[in-house]
Amino acid sequence: MNKNISTFIGCDNEYSESSVVLFGAPFDGTTSFRPGTRFGPSAIRNESIGIETYSPYQDLDLEDIAVFDAGDLEMAFGNPKLALDTIEAFSKKLLKDAKIPFMIGGEHLVTLGSVQAVSERYPDLCIIHFDAHADLREEYMGEKLSHASVMRRIWDLLGDDRIFQFGIRSGEKAEFAWGKNHVHTNKFDFLGLEELVDKLKGRPVYFTLDLDVLDPSIFPGTGTPEAGGVTFNQLLEAIIKLAPLNIVGLDINELSPIYDQSGVSTAVACKLIREILLMIHQK
Amino acid sequence: MNKNISTFIGCDNEYSESSVVLFGAPFDGTTSFRPGTRFGPSAIRNESIGIETYSPYQDLDLEDIAVFDAGDLEMAFGNPKLALDTIEAFSKKLLKDAKIPFMIGGEHLVTLGSVQAVSERYPDLCIIHFDAHADLREEYMGEKLSHASVMRRIWDLLGDDRIFQFGIRSGEKAEFAWGKNHVHTNKFDFLGLEELVDKLKGRPVYFTLDLDVLDPSIFPGTGTPEAGGVTFNQLLEAIIKLAPLNIVGLDINELSPIYDQSGVSTAVACKLIREILLMIHQK
Amino acid sequence: MNKNISTFIGCDNEYSESSVVLFGAPFDGTTSFRPGTRFGPSAIRNESIGIETYSPYQDLDLEDIAVFDAGDLEMAFGNPKLALDTIEAFSKKLLKDAKIPFMIGGEHLVTLGSVQAVSERYPDLCIIHFDAHADLREEYMGEKLSHASVMRRIWDLLGDDRIFQFGIRSGEKAEFAWGKNHVHTNKFDFLGLEELVDKLKGRPVYFTLDLDVLDPSIFPGTGTPEAGGVTFNQLLEAIIKLAPLNIVGLDINELSPIYDQSGVSTAVACKLIREILLMIHQK
Amino acid sequence: MNKNISTFIGCDNEYSESSVVLFGAPFDGTTSFRPGTRFGPSAIRNESIGIETYSPYQDLDLEDIAVFDAGDLEMAFGNPKLALDTIEAFSKKLLKDAKIPFMIGGEHLVTLGSVQAVSERYPDLCIIHFDAHADLREEYMGEKLSHASVMRRIWDLLGDDRIFQFGIRSGEKAEFAWGKNHVHTNKFDFLGLEELVDKLKGRPVYFTLDLDVLDPSIFPGTGTPEAGGVTFNQLLEAIIKLAPLNIVGLDINELSPIYDQSGVSTAVACKLIREILLMIHQK
Amino acid sequence: MNKNISTFIGCDNEYSESSVVLFGAPFDGTTSFRPGTRFGPSAIRNESIGIETYSPYQDLDLEDIAVFDAGDLEMAFGNPKLALDTIEAFSKKLLKDAKIPFMIGGEHLVTLGSVQAVSERYPDLCIIHFDAHADLREEYMGEKLSHASVMRRIWDLLGDDRIFQFGIRSGEKAEFAWGKNHVHTNKFDFLGLEELVDKLKGRPVYFTLDLDVLDPSIFPGTGTPEAGGVTFNQLLEAIIKLAPLNIVGLDINELSPIYDQSGVSTAVACKLIREILLMIHQK
Amino acid sequence: MNKNISTFIGCDNEYSESSVVLFGAPFDGTTSFRPGTRFGPSAIRNESIGIETYSPYQDLDLEDIAVFDAGDLEMAFGNPKLALDTIEAFSKKLLKDAKIPFMIGGEHLVTLGSVQAVSERYPDLCIIHFDAHADLREEYMGEKLSHASVMRRIWDLLGDDRIFQFGIRSGEKAEFAWGKNHVHTNKFDFLGLEELVDKLKGRPVYFTLDLDVLDPSIFPGTGTPEAGGVTFNQLLEAIIKLAPLNIVGLDINELSPIYDQSGVSTAVACKLIREILLMIHQK
Repeated sequence: MNKNISTFIGCDNEYSESSVVLFGAPFDGTTSFRPGTRFGPSAIRNESIGIETYSPYQDLDLEDIAVFDAGDLEMAFGNPKLALDTIEAFSKKLLKDAKIPFMIGGEHLVTLGSVQAVSERYPDLCIIHFDAHADLREEYMGEKLSHASVMRRIWDLLGDDRIFQFGIRSGEKAEFAWGKNHVHTNKFDFLGLEELVDKLKGRPVYFTLDLDVLDPSIFPGTGTPEAGGVTFNQLLEAIIKLAPLNIVGLDINELSPIYDQSGVSTAVACKLIREILLMIHQK
Repeated sequence: MNKNISTFIGCDNEYSESSVVLFGAPFDGTTSFRPGTRFGPSAIRNESIGIETYSPYQDLDLEDIAVFDAGDLEMAFGNPKLALDTIEAFSKKLLKDAKIPFMIGGEHLVTLGSVQAVSERYPDLCIIHFDAHADLREEYMGEKLSHASVMRRIWDLLGDDRIFQFGIRSGEKAEFAWGKNHVHTNKFDFLGLEELVDKLKGRPVYFTLDLDVLDPSIFPGTGTPEAGGVTFNQLLEAIIKLAPLNIVGLDINELSPIYDQSGVSTAVACKLIREILLMIHQK
Repeated sequence: MNKNISTFIGCDNEYSESSVVLFGAPFDGTTSFRPGTRFGPSAIRNESIGIETYSPYQDLDLEDIAVFDAGDLEMAFGNPKLALDTIEAFSKKLLKDAKIPFMIGGEHLVTLGSVQAVSERYPDLCIIHFDAHADLREEYMGEKLSHASVMRRIWDLLGDDRIFQFGIRSGEKAEFAWGKNHVHTNKFDFLGLEELVDKLKGRPVYFTLDLDVLDPSIFPGTGTPEAGGVTFNQLLEAIIKLAPLNIVGLDINELSPIYDQSGVSTAVACKLIREILLMIHQK
Repeated sequence: MNKNISTFIGCDNEYSESSVVLFGAPFDGTTSFRPGTRFGPSAIRNESIGIETYSPYQDLDLEDIAVFDAGDLEMAFGNPKLALDTIEAFSKKLLKDAKIPFMIGGEHLVTLGSVQAVSERYPDLCIIHFDAHADLREEYMGEKLSHASVMRRIWDLLGDDRIFQFGIRSGEKAEFAWGKNHVHTNKFDFLGLEELVDKLKGRPVYFTLDLDVLDPSIFPGTGTPEAGGVTFNQLLEAIIKLAPLNIVGLDINELSPIYDQSGVSTAVACKLIREILLMIHQK
Repeated sequence: MNKNISTFIGCDNEYSESSVVLFGAPFDGTTSFRPGTRFGPSAIRNESIGIETYSPYQDLDLEDIAVFDAGDLEMAFGNPKLALDTIEAFSKKLLKDAKIPFMIGGEHLVTLGSVQAVSERYPDLCIIHFDAHADLREEYMGEKLSHASVMRRIWDLLGDDRIFQFGIRSGEKAEFAWGKNHVHTNKFDFLGLEELVDKLKGRPVYFTLDLDVLDPSIFPGTGTPEAGGVTFNQLLEAIIKLAPLNIVGLDINELSPIYDQSGVSTAVACKLIREILLMIHQK
Repeated sequence: MNKNISTFIGCDNEYSESSVVLFGAPFDGTTSFRPGTRFGPSAIRNESIGIETYSPYQDLDLEDIAVFDAGDLEMAFGNPKLALDTIEAFSKKLLKDAKIPFMIGGEHLVTLGSVQAVSERYPDLCIIHFDAHADLREEYMGEKLSHASVMRRIWDLLGDDRIFQFGIRSGEKAEFAWGKNHVHTNKFDFLGLEELVDKLKGRPVYFTLDLDVLDPSIFPGTGTPEAGGVTFNQLLEAIIKLAPLNIVGLDINELSPIYDQSGVSTAVACKLIREILLMIHQK
C-alpha cells in the first residue's frame, strides 16, 4: 500500500526525470511586522488541488512537463544564519544534479541562501526582482541578515548593475538613494522589462518574486501589505515575458496564509507557480 | 399583526403583479473544492438592506418595478437529480404564469434545472454565460451531474452554437479543445459581446452569471477563486449591454459567503442583482 | 531524493508492520446545515505537527507503536452511495490484511461504509457511539443515506441492542421515542460506560466518535454545534476507559476546520487521535 | 404563491393563537465598547434552522406550543429615547392583546423599554436578571440612558428590593456599593435562585437574560466578554428552575454575532430561546 | 523613565512646533448598517508602524515635517449632538492656535463638527468631498444628524455651490435630484478635479475623505462597502493633485477595522494619511 | 496640549510612585509552531479599556494602587540572545530602582531574560511556573535558546528544587523523565499549590504564567493550543492563593491575538493582569 505523498498539483514526477525541483523554505524568523510566511509552502501544496494543471494563458499543461516536489526544508526559527546555510546546501545539491532550484518561501531573506548557491555556480548571475519593497537596507535593527536587507546582501555577493528591481513602491529614503548608484530600480510597475529581457538573453538569471508586488486587493495574505501594487494580469504578463531568459534558479515568497482567510492569496500563489513552471518550460 | 416577511430589498410586490420572480436554489451538493454556496441566497436576502434601491448607473429604481421574491426552494444535498427536478418544476410553474424566473444559486449545477424548464418552453433558446470556468467536462469523478459539467449538460439539451461564454480563464485542456467545436468561448473578458447582442436580438436568451467571473479581489467569497478576472465595472458594463435582449430566464450563482467575512462578496452580489433587475426592465 | 510523504505525526511506519491503519474519508455530501468536514482529514494531518507524540495521560508514545497513514480516499460529493462503497471496499482490504481500520471523516455518514465492512467480518459487532446527535432518523428530506440517519442504517445491519450511545443531547422527538426500543441511549454524558465496557469485554466493538459530543466551547469547528456537551477531560477519560475492549474498527468524524479559525478544534481532534491510538495499544 | 416568511424555528403560528410573541429590538446605539448586537435578532432567526424543535432536557417540543414571531422593530441608532419609546409602545400593544412579550436584543438598554410597558400593567413586578455586569451606574459618560445603567433606570421605576441579580462578576466599585442597599445581587453564580423562585411564586416576574452571563468560552459573540462566567448547563438548569414563576415579560440580549465567526454563540442563543419558550409553557 | 507615548508613525513632534494636528473622533453612533468605525483611529495609530515614513510617490518624508498627534477625543455613543460639540470645541482650539485640524473618524457625521469650527473661521470655505455615497439626505429615519445626511447639514451651513463631490456612486434617487441644484457632484471618478483645483486656488478648502470611495477590493473594512469604486492609485493621484490648494482643515473617515481581518484596509488608511500629510506640506 | 499616552487601564501612575512596573517584551523569534505573540503586549494595552479597574473577586481596585506602564521594549526578531540581553538590562534597571518588574510577553523564552536579572539580585530565588508545557528540553532543533527550553535554561541558573510547575500536560517523554529529578512538576492542575505557598513564604519568588495553562476553550489565542487545561476560575483561584508570597518579579506570556478574532483571549489576559496586580498589592 502506498504512502501518502503530497506534492504541488501535477508535480509528482521522479527526481531523476525532472529538470526543476520545487522545495519549501518555511522560515520567517526575521520578519519585523507580521510573521506567518512559514506556513506558505504547506498552504500552497495543500490548496494547489483547487487549480487546474492547464494554462489557457500559455496553452501548456503541468501534466506535460516534469517537476519534482521535494517537500520542505527543516528550519530553526531563532537562527537566520543556520537557515540560510541549510538552503544553500540544499540548492547546491540540486545544482550539482543539474536541476533548477525553485524555492517557495518563507520570508524574502531565504532568497539569500539560494542565491549564494546559484551565484557560486554562475558567477555572472543577474537577479530579476519583483517586489513592493526595495529590501536594500544595510541592516535592520542592528541585524545584517534581515528580510529588509536581502537585496543588499545579494549586492554584497554580486556587486553593481546585477540587480534589476520592478514594482518597488516602499522603502526608506536612504535605500532609494543608495540604490540609484548600485542597482536598477523600476518603481511601481514593469516598465522596461522587455528591454531588459533582450539585454540579458543568454546570461544566467535568478528570478525572485516577492508576492507583495501584487496589490493587496488580490494578495492580502502577506506580512506587510502595501497598497498601489500591480494587478494579477500585469504580473502574469510580466512573468510570461521572462520566457526567453536562461533562468537558472528562482523563488516565490512572502505568502502568509493566516492573513487571508478567504484563501485567495494562496490560490493566487498556486496559479503563479503553475504559470512560472510552464513559462520556464517554454524554453 | 403581520408576519415577518423577508425579501430582497425592494422586491416586496405581489406575485400577480410581478413579471420577474426571484427564488433561491441553495444547493451545493456536487461542489468539488470548497462548499458553502447553499448559504448564498439567504445571505443575499439578509444583506440586501445594505444597498440602495436606486441605480445611478441606469437612473432606475427598484421601487418603480414589480418583482416577487418567492424565498428558497428546499433542496436535498445528497441527491443532485432530485434538486434539479425541484428547480425545473418550480421554474415551469413560473413560466406557465408568464413570469421570468430569476434564480439565485447555489452552485452552478442549479442552472441545469432552470434551463431544462426554460428551453422546453423556448426551444430556440440561447445561453449567455459569464464565468471563470468553462464547465464543459463530460463528467467529474464519474458523475455527469456536476457543477463542472453544467454547460456540457446544457449542450446536451441545446446542441451546437447555442452557448456563448465570456470571461473563461480556467478549465482542463480537453474542455477547451471540445469547446472549440461546439460552443463559442471568449476567454478572459467580454470582447465581442456587443456584436453577439446584436445577433441575438429577438431570440429568447437565458443569462447565467457565475459570479466567479469577477476577479477574486472583489469577489473572494466563492468556492474556487480564480485570479485574473474582470473588474466589477467591466461586469456591470457587460450586464447593461444585455438590455436589448429578450431575456426569458436567468440566474446568478456561486456566492459562498463564509469565505468572505468582510461581507463584500455578498454586497457585490446584491448590487449586481439590483442592476440586472433594472436592466431587464429597460425593455 | 525522497518524495514528500505526509502523515499524521508519528504514524510514518510501514504498512506491513502496522496493526492500525489511519485513512481519511473526506466526504460531506449529505451535510444538511454547514458543510466542510471534507477538509477534516487534511487539516488533521497538517496540524498534527503541533502536538507531541507522547501522552502524559497514558504515559505512552506514538513513537513506540506502529501505525500506517494511508492518506485520503477519493470521494464524489454528489453520490453518497458511491462514497460508502469506496469506504467499504477499502476497509475490507484492511481487514483482510488483519489491520484495524481507523477512519477520519468527513461527516458521520461515512461510518456506515466502514461498519458495513467490519460487521461482515464480525457479525456479532457492537457499536459504541459518542455523539451530540442521536442520528436515528429513518430518513432526512426523503434520503435514507444521510448523516442524520447513520445510526438507523447501522441498526438496519445489526438490529436491536447492539448500539450504545453516549452524550446524546439533540434529536427529533421521534428519534428518542424509536431509540428507546432499539438502541441504548445515554443522554448528556458517559454515565454507565464502565459497566458497558465490563459487559462487552471480549466481543468485537466498533467505536465511532462524532466530535460534536464535545461542548462547542472547546470544539466550535463542526457543522452543527450543540451547546451543553462534555468537556475535553470527560471525553478523554471516557476514551481511556475503552482500553479493555476488543476494538476492531473505529472512526472519528465531523471536524469542519473552516468554522474554527483559531485551529483549536483541529488541535483537539489531533490530540484525541493520539490518545485513541495509544489507548488501543494498551491491549 | 406564498411570500417568504421568516421566523424563529417552530414559531410560525398565527398571532391570534399565540400566547407568546417574539420580536427583535436590534438597537446598540449606546454600546460603549464593541457594537454589533443590532445583528443579533436576524442572526438568531436565520440560524435557528440549525437546532431541533424538540428539547431532550424538558421533553417538550416547539411544535406543540404556539408562538408568533413578529420580526424586528425599526430602530434609529443615534436616538436611545426614541428606540425605547418604540419598544414600549410595541410591548404595550402585545400586553393589551394578552400576549407575553419576548424581546430579542440588541444591547441591554432595550430591556428598559419593555419593562416600562410591563411594569405599568403589573405595578408589583419583580425582575430576575442574569448578567455578568451589574448595570447599576447612575450614568455612563454623562448619559443616563446607557446599557451600563439599565438596571439603575429600572430601579428608578420599581424601587428597592424588586431586582434580583445572578451571575454578576463585573462593575465599578460604586455600583456594588450602591447595589447592596437597593437590589439583591448574587455574585458569580445562581446560588439562592431556588429560594427566590419559591418566594416570588404568584407575583408577576420579568426575566431579563444578558447572554454574557455565560462564560465567553461558550459565548464569545458579545460586546464585552467577561471570563469566569457560568457554563451552558448551569444556565440551562437555572432557566428551567424558573418554570414555577408567573413570567409576564422577558428578553434575551447582547448577542453580537460578528465577534464569533464560528456561529456557536448564535446557536447557543437559539437553543436558550427554545428552552425558555418551552419552560414558560410548562405552566 | 518615559511614559508610553503612542502616535501615528513619524508624528511625534511637539504641539508648539507643529502646523498640523492629528486627532481621532471615534464615534459611530448613527451608523445605520454595520458599526465599528469607532475603532478606526486606534487601529490606524497601532498599525502605522507597518508603513515607512518616506513616500516614493512624492519624494518626501514624515521625518522632515512637524505633526502633532493629540490622541482620541472622548465620545458618548448615544448622543450625536454632544459628540459634534466636542469635535467642534476641539477644532476651534486648534484653529485658535493656528493649527490645521486633521481628524480621523469615526463615521462620516464627525465631519460636521469639524466643519462647524472651520467654517466659522473661514466663512468662504469650500468642501472637497471624496465618497461613494452622496450623504445628502434631509434626514435618516427621522434624524437630521446622521452619517447619511452629513453633507446636507454642511450645506445648511455653507449654502449652494460650496460642496464639490467626487466618486459618488450610491444614494437615493431624491438625493441625486436635490444635489443637482445645490452641490457639484461628479459621479464614479475624479473627472474635473484638476479644473476645480485651479478654480479654488487661494480659497480656504476643507477636504473630507470617506474611504469608501475606494473600491471594496482594496478597502473592505468599512460599514457600507460599495463595489465599483476607484483604485488606490487613482485616489492617490487625486490627493496629490490637491497640493496647490489652501487646505485649512481635513478629515479621513469610515475605516471599520473589524470587517477586514487581513489588516489591509487599515494599512491603506495609514498610507493615505502619510500621503495627505506630505501633500499638505508641499505648500 | 498633552501627548497621547497609552497604558494598561488604571496604570497611569508616575514611575517614581510605583512599586510595580509593567513592560512588554514583544518577541516571538523562536516560536516553533504558530508565531504572533509579538502582538500580545499592544493588544493587551489597547483592549484593557474593555475591563473594569475594580475586582469583585478581591474587592480591590487598580485605581487605589500605583503601577507604571513603561511600554514595549524594542526587540530584534532574528537574534534571541540580543532580545534576552535587552530584557535583562531593563529588568536590572527596574530592580535597581526597587521596582517589581512585571513583563508581558511575547513567547515564553522572554522569561529567561527577566529571571537572569532577578536571580542575580535574589540568589535564592524560586520559580512558580503555570503552563501547559514543561519547557524542559535541553535544546530544540539544535538551539538552546528556545521557548521549549526556557525552564531548562532557568534550571541552568538556579539548579535543582527551585522550579515548581503546575498545570503541565504536554512535553516529550524525555522532558518528564528529566524533570522528575530536577524540578517539581504537578501535572494537569494546581494540586499542592497551597502547601507550596506555605513552604515558600518569605523567600523571593518569581511567578511566570504561560497563559496556555488555560484550556483553549477560554484561551484559543495562543501559539500551541493544548486541550484539557484549567478553567479561568481555577486559574484565578490559584493566582489569589499566591498573595502571601514575596513576589519579586513576574511575567505573563504567550497571548497571540491573531488566533482569536473574538478578542476573548486578550480580554482574559487583561483580566488576569488586573487580578495579579491586585493580588500583589494584598501584601
